[in-house]
Amino acid sequence: MRAAVLHGVGKIALEERPRPEPGPAEVLVEVASVGTCGSDVHYYEHGRIGDFVVESPLVLGHEPSGTVVGAGSDAHRHRPGQRVSLEPGVPDFTCRQCRAGRYNLCPRMRFFGTPPVDGAFCEYVTVHEEFAYPVPDDLSDDAAALIEPLSVAVWACGKARAGPGSRVLVTGAGPVGLLCLQAARAFGATDVMVTDVNPVRLGLARDLGASATLDPRADRLLDAAFDPDVLLECSGHPAAAGQAIRAVGRAGRIVLIGMGGDEIPLPLTHVQAHELEVTGTFRYANTWPRAIELAASGRVELDALVTGHYGLAEAEQALTAGTRDPALVKAVVRPQE
Amino acid sequence: MRAAVLHGVGKIALEERPRPEPGPAEVLVEVASVGTCGSDVHYYEHGRIGDFVVESPLVLGHEPSGTVVGAGSDAHRHRPGQRVSLEPGVPDFTCRQCRAGRYNLCPRMRFFGTPPVDGAFCEYVTVHEEFAYPVPDDLSDDAAALIEPLSVAVWACGKARAGPGSRVLVTGAGPVGLLCLQAARAFGATDVMVTDVNPVRLGLARDLGASATLDPRADRLLDAAFDPDVLLECSGHPAAAGQAIRAVGRAGRIVLIGMGGDEIPLPLTHVQAHELEVTGTFRYANTWPRAIELAASGRVELDALVTGHYGLAEAEQALTAGTRDPALVKAVVRPQE
Amino acid sequence: MRAAVLHGVGKIALEERPRPEPGPAEVLVEVASVGTCGSDVHYYEHGRIGDFVVESPLVLGHEPSGTVVGAGSDAHRHRPGQRVSLEPGVPDFTCRQCRAGRYNLCPRMRFFGTPPVDGAFCEYVTVHEEFAYPVPDDLSDDAAALIEPLSVAVWACGKARAGPGSRVLVTGAGPVGLLCLQAARAFGATDVMVTDVNPVRLGLARDLGASATLDPRADRLLDAAFDPDVLLECSGHPAAAGQAIRAVGRAGRIVLIGMGGDEIPLPLTHVQAHELEVTGTFRYANTWPRAIELAASGRVELDALVTGHYGLAEAEQALTAGTRDPALVKAVVRPQE
Amino acid sequence: MRAAVLHGVGKIALEERPRPEPGPAEVLVEVASVGTCGSDVHYYEHGRIGDFVVESPLVLGHEPSGTVVGAGSDAHRHRPGQRVSLEPGVPDFTCRQCRAGRYNLCPRMRFFGTPPVDGAFCEYVTVHEEFAYPVPDDLSDDAAALIEPLSVAVWACGKARAGPGSRVLVTGAGPVGLLCLQAARAFGATDVMVTDVNPVRLGLARDLGASATLDPRADRLLDAAFDPDVLLECSGHPAAAGQAIRAVGRAGRIVLIGMGGDEIPLPLTHVQAHELEVTGTFRYANTWPRAIELAASGRVELDALVTGHYGLAEAEQALTAGTRDPALVKAVVRPQE
Repeated sequence: MRAAVLHGVGKIALEERPRPEPGPAEVLVEVASVGTCGSDVHYYEHGRIGDFVVESPLVLGHEPSGTVVGAGSDAHRHRPGQRVSLEPGVPDFTCRQCRAGRYNLCPRMRFFGTPPVDGAFCEYVTVHEEFAYPVPDDLSDDAAALIEPLSVAVWACGKARAGPGSRVLVTGAGPVGLLCLQAARAFGATDVMVTDVNPVRLGLARDLGASATLDPRADRLLDAAFDPDVLLECSGHPAAAGQAIRAVGRAGRIVLIGMGGDEIPLPLTHVQAHELEVTGTFRYANTWPRAIELAASGRVELDALVTGHYGLAEAEQALTAGTRDPALVKAVVRPQE
Repeated sequence: MRAAVLHGVGKIALEERPRPEPGPAEVLVEVASVGTCGSDVHYYEHGRIGDFVVESPLVLGHEPSGTVVGAGSDAHRHRPGQRVSLEPGVPDFTCRQCRAGRYNLCPRMRFFGTPPVDGAFCEYVTVHEEFAYPVPDDLSDDAAALIEPLSVAVWACGKARAGPGSRVLVTGAGPVGLLCLQAARAFGATDVMVTDVNPVRLGLARDLGASATLDPRADRLLDAAFDPDVLLECSGHPAAAGQAIRAVGRAGRIVLIGMGGDEIPLPLTHVQAHELEVTGTFRYANTWPRAIELAASGRVELDALVTGHYGLAEAEQALTAGTRDPALVKAVVRPQE
Repeated sequence: MRAAVLHGVGKIALEERPRPEPGPAEVLVEVASVGTCGSDVHYYEHGRIGDFVVESPLVLGHEPSGTVVGAGSDAHRHRPGQRVSLEPGVPDFTCRQCRAGRYNLCPRMRFFGTPPVDGAFCEYVTVHEEFAYPVPDDLSDDAAALIEPLSVAVWACGKARAGPGSRVLVTGAGPVGLLCLQAARAFGATDVMVTDVNPVRLGLARDLGASATLDPRADRLLDAAFDPDVLLECSGHPAAAGQAIRAVGRAGRIVLIGMGGDEIPLPLTHVQAHELEVTGTFRYANTWPRAIELAASGRVELDALVTGHYGLAEAEQALTAGTRDPALVKAVVRPQE
Repeated sequence: MRAAVLHGVGKIALEERPRPEPGPAEVLVEVASVGTCGSDVHYYEHGRIGDFVVESPLVLGHEPSGTVVGAGSDAHRHRPGQRVSLEPGVPDFTCRQCRAGRYNLCPRMRFFGTPPVDGAFCEYVTVHEEFAYPVPDDLSDDAAALIEPLSVAVWACGKARAGPGSRVLVTGAGPVGLLCLQAARAFGATDVMVTDVNPVRLGLARDLGASATLDPRADRLLDAAFDPDVLLECSGHPAAAGQAIRAVGRAGRIVLIGMGGDEIPLPLTHVQAHELEVTGTFRYANTWPRAIELAASGRVELDALVTGHYGLAEAEQALTAGTRDPALVKAVVRPQE
């Protein structure tokens, strides 16, 4: 099969590789769509993310959808031909974190496109059968791929206890921010403000249901007459995060989703006087069924985020598209094209 | 002012009464719409509900909306002319339950239309200013009144932890059942089944978003290939409740909302083997802002439930309308007409 | 190795069986102590518990402690000679319930001494290495075995959200009731009342820290001037359970632990008016580390519950000891003696 | 009556003031013991804490116990002679935060010894009858006063969900740190490490049940082979707080109790990768009954923290005692002496 392989900073080559064999509990999946993510771009540009260093050739891509075309000896959950969305991180299932239902915190997690585990910028992948989730026919391949970033948003909204009556502030209108906006609304919030410096993305946020948008360079958040009790921080800018936290009111919940910088300044007095709850998210757990339902029912719009399709030979272009066009939201690689 | 006063079982008289004076922290409200509730009917037909006995003339009605027309010396929250929805039960605010945020369980609660506290089948009422909630202009008087039963549903959905991914079974398609259906959807559930023996109500449930409906006389719930993890029991029929509980799957949540009968048979082995959580609701606490947002944003449709309007002189007809027409959902009394 | 094998109602035979071989992720454990449980007695007396029917010869016993003496090829967690307490139910780890942290609800659970899975009334058993938990040297073999019923109590106290300030009612002073009493105190409760009809057991409850005891035949619970907010129901008597629920005050939590009878009468009006939360427990999940800490620190006293030791050849006597002496609390089988 | 009145930075004068009259819902309390707190010292030394500025003469002291000697017309809860511990902050009871059970976040809170509300360094105070809590005879006046700082600790342990199995790190062994240690143990934790730079206080921590202590100048926390899942940060040192957060493991809870500095550096990547929950506390709500039970049952030792008694005329010495002796834990003012 063909695979787009990262060989070092800024170097991706299209190669032939053997088609993987599914293990006993795994299915073989023909990949249909793979979303590109900021972390893919970061590995491509820097060769590492924190302690994860690309030391040997690596296939990127961890937002795949596809079709089941084979199965291991003990995998009976899916029939061939089943269209599926893949959860790209498979834990060891048996450690203390896994047994407590926090498998996203499993120290032995194997995650697509994260050294040393290959990802989905290729024609076929294998995955534990329980991490391949059937999708209905009317969900597109792209939407089935974008269940992954939607899961990030669903997980964050759960942590934030978003629901009817929540006033939600989303900082950053990239793909995850736009999905957090939509997920917050799907959880029941009617009042969601989105901030970003990019007017195109703010316009998209309004199209997708934001009740207000704000460019923090033009208007001060604290003057905005918006008193959020939930902050979904998706910008990853330490200073912006610190400022946004100061806008959150009594008993508010803050979820730090955006990555960037090792530290942020936490406004201690504000956090104490308002008894804010601050947490960070690491991927997700048990979100696929919910995320698929939200997309399949039309409560979350995924196809609207896709701003470009690329073949495997164009994987490099997919990863650099954002640099060329800051309004771009989500580039999708389609390995069969 | 005029008031419709219950003088004994089946006896309501229209009378002149002095207009009430607001206490220091109270507002005076000109009543616009008052929903009728099963408990109003029960007092009218039986003169009591459990330990609450009608011993002196009583004004019924606890689902009022109206307009602020006066205020006590310490009440500064609302301007005259403000349209409001009233929360009809005011606690003592300082007892242990109140301080813990469970003011609905306050043993000194004073609740509209519950002996010995008069209700809202009259032209003017007074209420603590914090229990009068402004409503937007585009919310009708009827809808502002029906925030009260919607609050019952919002409270129940909160207790049930309904949200995206929940599969919700609502037993009973009366006003509260139909509002539970809508509230569950507003909390994020996409899959809601409603059961009732009345085909007209089941049709209304489908119109309001039920993904499936079932007449338990015709089809067995356990055969319905619906594996709920949330049960909102609104029928109040002990046997039906017991059966419905047996349909709920692992780690499911059951909220007993419907009243009727002092006991229900709890299927112990089923509850244990599936670790079901069973709870009952008593009214609501802190629901008005959320309920108003859901109605104002159009996520919950309240006007569609109103099946008849009555003047004060017709209060008796409003209370007996359900007996004459089983398909009737919600009769509304409009004291100014 | 020798094993005590149930061959039908009331028939246990001592037999030679091959020593089991650990699977790749398993350890081989030489059994030191095995507590006997009401369910063992029930299988012995009736040949079934609900849908679980003893259809072929079965080794009972699911409360074992012992020493690691071997390990499978992938099992590296324990060294030979490690003393361990065994969690006797191993789930499939990968199903929806397991991934959510509710592995006790795994539909493919394999549980010691439950048809068709053999238990621990024998010299050696194998178990997944993650379900063998090291115990400190000063915890006796018996205590290490009784971590299992203590886990039932720890799990129940967690469900009940017992803690400082809780007023806890424990109905039934059998082994689980006495452990619930101790666990509730270890969770912070200072005020725990225990009820039973057996005065010897009530005396033991007082010795173990009950602040009050009551014989429900002599004194009415509702007259006891004890207003519990937590009920740990360990009697399994439907009528007693129904009565005890009526004693629980506003916002109370009720955990139904005792088995017996398919249904209990749930006082609906009381549950609603007080917004009680009722749940049942099915074994436990993630309790072993906590339970071991409580026993090792002396906060829970386990050895005091042991009222008799039996060799493998006396397994039948261990199971019938309770019939002969109603004051007996916990019989322990010691297969090496 | 006599009162110790703060007239500016470093100036306290003993004055005669009229004895206060209880309002309708209040009781009049003869003050027995008043603990001194770091915030009293801060007002004395700086004349302000953040936005709270001492602009007119102020009586400090917010940790009082005493005896009920009078009552307002509507106050029927206590008999004269009742010994009580006082909760020193009375909210408005009716605002949104109060109704939700978060009365500590009430924006109209009136709190003893906080401008412009006088405190308890005087012979008599008045308080809402619901905020005077009876204490048993065997609880000393000093202990009844120290229910206030114990409430801080109980509130923090609740926020941290401390319980059996928690491994708790307490940073800072001042009065609140030593009470957090004890409260954590009373909530069920058996494994509590305390850090401080003061060896006398570390010794006291060990006496009060710490399983380990550490001087962070001598030993690195991250080398300590202690993997906490709960951090109770009582030092208020921004850098120390940041470091301690890095020691907390997966799914850990961090409660920021110590005040000092407007910001702390939050290790974002660590918080995200481990999904830590960080929150701050602002006083407490609904803690008095629990705290009194813990003290009365002997699970928390309060008298051992008292390191000096002072009459009203010595209030200034009480406030400066800590400066003279860094090992001092808690100075108590006794206005009747």
